[in-house]
Amino acid sequence: MENVLIVYAAPEPKSLNGALLAAALKTLTDQGTCVEVSDLYGMKFKAVLDASDFPNRWDTTVFDPAAEQIHAIATDSIAPDIATEIEKVRRADLLIVQFPIWWTSMPAILKGWFDRVFAQGFVVNVGTGEVYGRGLLRGKKALVVVTAGSPAELYAPGGPHGDLHELLRPLTHNLLQFCGLEVLPTHVVYNAAGIAPDDADREVEMYQDRLLAIEA
Amino acid sequence: MENVLIVYAAPEPKSLNGALLAAALKTLTDQGTCVEVSDLYGMKFKAVLDASDFPNRWDTTVFDPAAEQIHAIATDSIAPDIATEIEKVRRADLLIVQFPIWWTSMPAILKGWFDRVFAQGFVVNVGTGEVYGRGLLRGKKALVVVTAGSPAELYAPGGPHGDLHELLRPLTHNLLQFCGLEVLPTHVVYNAAGIAPDDADREVEMYQDRLLAIEA
Repeated sequence: MENVLIVYAAPEPKSLNGALLAAALKTLTDQGTCVEVSDLYGMKFKAVLDASDFPNRWDTTVFDPAAEQIHAIATDSIAPDIATEIEKVRRADLLIVQFPIWWTSMPAILKGWFDRVFAQGFVVNVGTGEVYGRGLLRGKKALVVVTAGSPAELYAPGGPHGDLHELLRPLTHNLLQFCGLEVLPTHVVYNAAGIAPDDADREVEMYQDRLLAIEA
Repeated sequence: MENVLIVYAAPEPKSLNGALLAAALKTLTDQGTCVEVSDLYGMKFKAVLDASDFPNRWDTTVFDPAAEQIHAIATDSIAPDIATEIEKVRRADLLIVQFPIWWTSMPAILKGWFDRVFAQGFVVNVGTGEVYGRGLLRGKKALVVVTAGSPAELYAPGGPHGDLHELLRPLTHNLLQFCGLEVLPTHVVYNAAGIAPDDADREVEMYQDRLLAIEA
């Protein structure tokens, strides 16, 4: 891979997520990969899609987010902070999406990154059927990296929580695959709540090995 | 039901979601029910859980959201906007969660409401096993009400998107049931993108009928 974008949504650098991010940065740059990071908490990224994202409104009487996204992409008039993220996605061969599982899905700030940055007209074109295998981000890969507080047993198929990979399908399938990305198997760190330092070190090493095993 | 809280996350009042909300308010208040509404866009609700939610920190050296939530609930020191929402949830017999499906899940502002308001120590107590049937919100009911842009066929089991009810499980099961709420079958309006006025009127009536059929 030449270019990797890591979209990172954890509030505390001195955390397992912080250690995983630092390890990914080192591992990838040591390989000669160009890495960009969108540290959403660090950037104080605006989480909420609203009318102010569209300074050049298509229809000022009724706010229809999808219609405004299509118009804003077509006229290159989306809010500057979104445009910056779009350029990062355009440059990336691999998109790494890293977050702690909160309520079995993404922290709000990361959901908001997708709500705002993955604009219709940029990632898909529903009207022309450019979705899934014809999605506008085809040719790129995606890797979802998560830490889960609970142990793996609770997420076993038939377990009390259900299979975590199924529960992440709204992200892996309905969002990333829908946009044409090739989605690699999700990298999960279970038992992350109060993890012991030795276990954390081992998880960091396993993540580095996982990154090195990704084929260009 | 005596008390209903509607948590509502749509940015445009002149939308099908706005019409559904207005109809619910009328239908429920006509029945003598006390209805509170948290209109998250209207309130400009802060979507992102961060350290400023915890003015009386348990540990100022490392920010651990779960630990801070438990401490803040135990010491009654959570941020005032969260405390206000917690009181609304406490008063409610039925929690209605209404939103347009964005990327097959909640808009970020609503995910943030759950990240911030459904604080550990208030909704569950993992350490003492007070989850699922023993969750701290047991005795209350929940109804998820969503509009989906796509037609129902795309969400059929085995269809390209997959079963919408399965895709909403992180909310219905892993969040609401996890906290002890009795979750009613999700009310879905498919084909909501560009819905014709007559069809919208019929959907509003069907939603009113649905609300009237909920048993106390």
